[in-house]
Amino acid sequence: MGTLYGVSVGAGDPGLMTLRAVRIMESCGVIAVPRTHGENSLALSIAEQAADLSRKRKVYLDLPMCRDREALDRNYDETAEMLCGLLESDDVAVPTLGDISVYSTFSRIAQRVEKRGFKAEICAGVTSFSAAADALGKPLCLGSEPLHILPYGCGDFEKLLDLSGTKVVMKTGSKSSELIALLRKKGLALRTSVIENCGLENERIFGSLDEVTDDLGYFTVFIIGECSDET
Amino acid sequence: MGTLYGVSVGAGDPGLMTLRAVRIMESCGVIAVPRTHGENSLALSIAEQAADLSRKRKVYLDLPMCRDREALDRNYDETAEMLCGLLESDDVAVPTLGDISVYSTFSRIAQRVEKRGFKAEICAGVTSFSAAADALGKPLCLGSEPLHILPYGCGDFEKLLDLSGTKVVMKTGSKSSELIALLRKKGLALRTSVIENCGLENERIFGSLDEVTDDLGYFTVFIIGECSDET
Repeated sequence: MGTLYGVSVGAGDPGLMTLRAVRIMESCGVIAVPRTHGENSLALSIAEQAADLSRKRKVYLDLPMCRDREALDRNYDETAEMLCGLLESDDVAVPTLGDISVYSTFSRIAQRVEKRGFKAEICAGVTSFSAAADALGKPLCLGSEPLHILPYGCGDFEKLLDLSGTKVVMKTGSKSSELIALLRKKGLALRTSVIENCGLENERIFGSLDEVTDDLGYFTVFIIGECSDET
Repeated sequence: MGTLYGVSVGAGDPGLMTLRAVRIMESCGVIAVPRTHGENSLALSIAEQAADLSRKRKVYLDLPMCRDREALDRNYDETAEMLCGLLESDDVAVPTLGDISVYSTFSRIAQRVEKRGFKAEICAGVTSFSAAADALGKPLCLGSEPLHILPYGCGDFEKLLDLSGTKVVMKTGSKSSELIALLRKKGLALRTSVIENCGLENERIFGSLDEVTDDLGYFTVFIIGECSDET
């Protein structure tokens, strides 16, 4: 009976894959690749640049991006069912962008797989915000500064932006310009760094909102900095 | 003229080092090892298990852990001066626990090295809280839940614990029992997982505060969970 591995592949640069992630990907018989927004072939392509996956069996998991809870649950159930079939005879690795413990759908599927009596494990990786700090060449937080990771549009989002410490805003999707307008209104334009497509060929780095002149893509991280050398 | 590399080595398990971290450590002529609380020989020992550093020149950086800003600044200045001497002829790697963008002293030294005309780069890694989530086998945050990383005793600490979403408390140092008492008072005992010495031989995992029966060590991460499958 096989194990289901959720494998974090980092944010874009295959060099950010961990040794363990490479080892797990290479040891599993099946690679199950989630697909939504085309993002998922990206996770596979990162993994393929660091591990030899040429002779692996690949299956695709079609995961919808919607807010209809029932439709999502039905999809997760079906996906788990399909994975359990594969786990009867093989270990299965699911490559996932960034770190799997931060906003990944994998956990919802893993729970269902475990309920059906199979083993599931996660393999930690580099989050998109650590990779973004790396790209900017500056720390996210120092001393006793808090660090707040905020999905765009979460409850009390505007108030959370007023917290002291560094704020990272993720998951803006197609609403980057809406967020930029809000940050400008709050006077945070010069304190916000923006990293689009971190670690990929088309990476763009903006030191402040004033440098952003056109639309931003799906993979964009906003870092609203507090970080000084004073704390 | 050499480059100064701040290299994140992950939280304990050498398998969590990235491919890039291994490559950089192996390519630098000098390894500069920060020492405080013995923590720093730990970073070196993790790196040595993943990279061949046997023939590298090793120098030690004695960094104090104190709140005297002037003493700290003097120490950082002296350390930067010493590193610049090494950078005249070599690349220098500084191995650091966890991810270097999260509460690492490296940035303070790197700033000073850059002011003296040398190049400094950081290499992202796996944070202690991602590794802790991996050890617990469950996600830090799902859906639209915020994630708050709180150094123990930061301003408004008690209020920040009331925020919705997941709270990770780091840097308790020797004050774990103080924090545990506070979390109990707030009724959070059963929602708090504790990971001590994550990824190391003496790792301990406690699913709730009720399981903690004795003192906790310096390397302990507290995760106050919100994470459900409901969001």
